[in-house]
Amino acid sequence: MLARLRDALPLLDQLTQYSADHLKSDLSAGLTVGVMLIPQGMAYALIAGLPPIYGLYASLIPLLGYAIFGTSRQLAVGPVAIVSLLVAASVAPMAEGDPNRYIMLALTLTLMVGVLQLAMGLLRFGFLVNFLSHPVLSGFTSAAALVIGFSQLKHLLGVDIERSNYIHEILWAAAQQWEAIHLPTVMLGVVGIIILLMLKRWSKAIPGALVVVVLGTGAIWLFGGNQAGVSIVGEVPGGLPRFVIPAFSWADVQALIPGALTISLIGFMESIAVAKVYARRNGYSLDANKELVGLGVANMAGAFFQSYPTTGGFSRTAVNADAGAKTNVAGIISAVVIALTLLFLTPLFYYMPNAILASIVMVAVAGLVDWEEAMYLWRVDRRDLALMALTFVATLTLGIEEGILAGVIVSLVAIIYQSATPHTAIMGRLPDSTTYRNLKRSPNAITRADVMIVRMDAALYFANVSTFKDLVSEIDMNNDALRAIVIDMYPVNRVDSTAAHALHEIIAVCHENGIDLYLAGLKGPVHDVLSRAGVIHELGPQHLFHEVHAAVQAAEAAHRSDASGNGTASDTERSETERPAEVSS
Amino acid sequence: MLARLRDALPLLDQLTQYSADHLKSDLSAGLTVGVMLIPQGMAYALIAGLPPIYGLYASLIPLLGYAIFGTSRQLAVGPVAIVSLLVAASVAPMAEGDPNRYIMLALTLTLMVGVLQLAMGLLRFGFLVNFLSHPVLSGFTSAAALVIGFSQLKHLLGVDIERSNYIHEILWAAAQQWEAIHLPTVMLGVVGIIILLMLKRWSKAIPGALVVVVLGTGAIWLFGGNQAGVSIVGEVPGGLPRFVIPAFSWADVQALIPGALTISLIGFMESIAVAKVYARRNGYSLDANKELVGLGVANMAGAFFQSYPTTGGFSRTAVNADAGAKTNVAGIISAVVIALTLLFLTPLFYYMPNAILASIVMVAVAGLVDWEEAMYLWRVDRRDLALMALTFVATLTLGIEEGILAGVIVSLVAIIYQSATPHTAIMGRLPDSTTYRNLKRSPNAITRADVMIVRMDAALYFANVSTFKDLVSEIDMNNDALRAIVIDMYPVNRVDSTAAHALHEIIAVCHENGIDLYLAGLKGPVHDVLSRAGVIHELGPQHLFHEVHAAVQAAEAAHRSDASGNGTASDTERSETERPAEVSS
Repeated sequence: MLARLRDALPLLDQLTQYSADHLKSDLSAGLTVGVMLIPQGMAYALIAGLPPIYGLYASLIPLLGYAIFGTSRQLAVGPVAIVSLLVAASVAPMAEGDPNRYIMLALTLTLMVGVLQLAMGLLRFGFLVNFLSHPVLSGFTSAAALVIGFSQLKHLLGVDIERSNYIHEILWAAAQQWEAIHLPTVMLGVVGIIILLMLKRWSKAIPGALVVVVLGTGAIWLFGGNQAGVSIVGEVPGGLPRFVIPAFSWADVQALIPGALTISLIGFMESIAVAKVYARRNGYSLDANKELVGLGVANMAGAFFQSYPTTGGFSRTAVNADAGAKTNVAGIISAVVIALTLLFLTPLFYYMPNAILASIVMVAVAGLVDWEEAMYLWRVDRRDLALMALTFVATLTLGIEEGILAGVIVSLVAIIYQSATPHTAIMGRLPDSTTYRNLKRSPNAITRADVMIVRMDAALYFANVSTFKDLVSEIDMNNDALRAIVIDMYPVNRVDSTAAHALHEIIAVCHENGIDLYLAGLKGPVHDVLSRAGVIHELGPQHLFHEVHAAVQAAEAAHRSDASGNGTASDTERSETERPAEVSS
Repeated sequence: MLARLRDALPLLDQLTQYSADHLKSDLSAGLTVGVMLIPQGMAYALIAGLPPIYGLYASLIPLLGYAIFGTSRQLAVGPVAIVSLLVAASVAPMAEGDPNRYIMLALTLTLMVGVLQLAMGLLRFGFLVNFLSHPVLSGFTSAAALVIGFSQLKHLLGVDIERSNYIHEILWAAAQQWEAIHLPTVMLGVVGIIILLMLKRWSKAIPGALVVVVLGTGAIWLFGGNQAGVSIVGEVPGGLPRFVIPAFSWADVQALIPGALTISLIGFMESIAVAKVYARRNGYSLDANKELVGLGVANMAGAFFQSYPTTGGFSRTAVNADAGAKTNVAGIISAVVIALTLLFLTPLFYYMPNAILASIVMVAVAGLVDWEEAMYLWRVDRRDLALMALTFVATLTLGIEEGILAGVIVSLVAIIYQSATPHTAIMGRLPDSTTYRNLKRSPNAITRADVMIVRMDAALYFANVSTFKDLVSEIDMNNDALRAIVIDMYPVNRVDSTAAHALHEIIAVCHENGIDLYLAGLKGPVHDVLSRAGVIHELGPQHLFHEVHAAVQAAEAAHRSDASGNGTASDTERSETERPAEVSS
């Protein structure tokens, strides 16, 4: 009973071994992350198209929810840039400019994301995240970072630009209003960016975002920048988020489904990737499905307390871990920092300039444009680079959700195409060894006229069966010297019933031509299917070997005894001595 | 120049080596198939919902077109049952009961099929057919055979039943009219079926369809069965098919696209499957894309001479080959038989009873219900049986085209799912060998505490990278005795950039834990990617081996020298002597 409870509530498990040392570490980490969350949360709320205070609401209840149900001890949950963008992309087209409806839809979306993540976790659907490949994610994140960066242009320039997911629309709108650009605002934002970049380079221990927020707010307060037309955050309601039941219509829920699905998966993907890194570094294991449950509870709980969708963020988790977080208690301490801020410090936010928040966003997302991955793929895998580029371009041109969907679909089609057109090889024996390798790669490998050794590098199934049949049928069976074909089956990881049919056909062709067929290196699951299909029986167990070399030796021995038996000697190509066939079955 | 012409026109190539012997064989085969085509063509036209004479039109020009451009020397082109059904399924819903519009749509469809097949052939899209797996095709054919069989029920019962692709609708309509059933018609049809089945069992040399047609037509003529209410073919226009340009609207073309695509692929699939069998038996090779061109030309030419879509049929090709067809001249001779029939014999068709044509169809398609494949799959591969059953049920319930589409999609999803959840193994050495195998399958395999040997049976790519990482991370790295991990990479047929990232991570984890990582059996294409990704460099070439055994020996040697070097001996598990590491790189 207690074990099951501990299993469901990882925090309980952690608390049973809690020590004063743990508390010291968690306190330090929790305070650091909490302080970092204040400006970041408010800045990310701007990306989501919400009032800044909602970034703080999203930094409170979800942290507590995750602390109780989550299994990562270092993960820092809260608002993150990409999810904020996805929220805006889903909600903005439906809100029709009504700020109250916008907020209501965002809260509904949070509840949906929570329910979806919880359901996926309980149904063990965490594996779905595996279908987001690295190049697709990288192309998507890079494009999203650009969209986010440009979405803040209006705050940096102090002009009114309608929200858009398309960079060219934003730039065009900005260009049309170039004479309205507010110079003091631009200067403030640019100085903010410069300070952030300098602090980032100088020392990672300094919470840059907090520094520029304090400096920027102080400057406006001192010099009355708001009278000069600098846009400020203004009146912020004090106090903790209220309990609200998201009011929704089924039509809204249906329209939000694609967005909720995307956020659930992308948010989970970001979270699990960073959580796994720190789990490994700290020597504990992580269950993807339990993580989904943890994030699902965090979002569901948050939805009832004015939170927009959250997940585990990359940069704050790194800070949390570096600052020594040992258990989920660190997250609770961060939440307490936010709660105290909401209760007592909101009056201080009045003079906070939006341009400074925009500068924080821009510097944060600049690091997400993944040039390094593009360069890496240029060297390593051009096909994957094309996939990254496709996702990048599709995200910028077709739209946020459409872009990632296009990337996923194309990457799956590419997988099928590749497995349908597998690599094949005719093999020879490497000199002074019993190893057989592709003749094209190892031109000095030794071939023989009487035994042909072939290999196909793929699971053998309906879509590539014809390649396999062609591999055998392209062998010149009318060649008088040829007595046997050995197929190296070790790279054949799986066979289906179509493949079993093909092997029956290949055996028939070989027999018609008086050629012996040997299979080497059959693996368990493949052997099972071929055995049930009668292929093993038809072939005879004496034609199965673990190793290619043993099969070649057996083929030679059979052919020699055959030749000596009926007197028609044809041992033309026995240029080298072979050891006797090893016992193998 | 001549070579290129020969390449484009296979018939020319065949004629340059033509002999009197060839002509004798081709004449016999061509006559046999031509005689067989007369009743079959008329019967299949009924399946397509067309007047019987259109079956003969479809047996003329397409045969000539294929004879000139096709590469199979035995393939007998003409109307076939499944394609006829697909024609009815596409055209009937659009014709709105207007017989002239029905014929016009069928001719338009023929032209579209021809253009599609020609285009696919020229663009080398023949590989697309590989995505129709055996179980899907089998399930589809079985269901289609049932639909075809039941579609003839109205002719067998002599009642008027509206065309439907749903068996339950046909049965319901028949049940509602049970008192209208025309007994003489039923008896005629049943006797036809019995004769056909008996002749089929007795001797394959007798053209059963022709026999029942002659007997049935004679009986009606003698006894005046048409006055007794037996439905007959009636007045048939004599003469060769006219040249007509299919008149079409773009709206019709758009509506026919799904049908044209399905017919192009299914027709090609049936044709190439049987053509390949006889190409192999007769020792020549076949190019799938050229076959598409041949069928495409056959259909395009046919479309202008009142032909509905045709393809190479299974049973007539078998007869053609058995009767000795040596070249495409056999097809030309069959066409001549049909031409003579159209010119001189059409008056004989007047008394031909529809019930006899229905009996021919029913016996022909009964053999297409693939019980054997279902039994085979029950033994061999339950997953494929499920796929066959799904396609079968979907074809009967969702519709003809929808059924095959559902089968293809589910089979592709299954492929992705399987490659995303690969088989993995921890391996040991088989006694008295250098072969390493799965411990679960070979419990007597020898393991060692200092070297762990693992394997993953799949191409390593984004969707299964997490399985691969888990495989390594589940190894207890804190085990003091463990010094090295050997990964058998020979079954890893391909890696992508996500996999390269994963290997970097795995190397890092191993190094953190003071464990040596060895890769054995890297194949060329995999080595290339890992080399460009820097994995090979990071690992060091001394950690790469062709064979698992060599890697294990190297690991042991390194560990031994390490132990003797720093004095902390820990050679706990050297229970057996190993030969010195073989030279390999």
